[in-house]
Amino acid sequence: HSAVETRLFDKINTKIDLDSPKVATMDKLSNGDKKVYCRCWQSGTFPLCDGSHMAHNKETGDNVGPLIVSVAKAEE
Amino acid sequence: HSAVETRLFDKINTKIDLDSPKVATMDKLSNGDKKVYCRCWQSGTFPLCDGSHMAHNKETGDNVGPLIVSVAKAEE
Ligand code: FES
Ligand code: FES
Repeated sequence: HSAVETRLFDKINTKIDLDSPKVATMDKLSNGDKKVYCRCWQSGTFPLCDGSHMAHNKETGDNVGPLIVSVAKAEE
Repeated sequence: HSAVETRLFDKINTKIDLDSPKVATMDKLSNGDKKVYCRCWQSGTFPLCDGSHMAHNKETGDNVGPLIVSVAKAEE
């Protein structure tokens, strides 16, 4: 089986809030904020990225990485 | 094998920017913005969520969902 065929039947989250029917996360940012959010579901600081995507990518050949969101400082 | 054992050897991204060594996304928000970002790697509008996580969760028994980030409107 190819990776694509296998993927269709596999969960990607094996760790975060497994008792929740759906892990949707809400976050509010303020002027000047910059945050790095996990998209690999392996972070020890989820919903933030702690770099765990690197081990995941190395083990699996995957190429996932975080979302980095910033908000400009307030105008003066 | 359990889902957890299988997961260790599987990619979670089979679709987005497969030629990129690592898909890190930068985005800038402004006051009053609210955005819904994909964390399932299946969205047709990646990096934004288009609801594709629902089909993924149904097919696999997974419980993943988006990250929703908002920025307050500027103070008056
Ligand atoms: S730890 Fe998950 S994307 Fe970095
Ligand atoms: S489409 Fe990927 S989280 Fe919604």
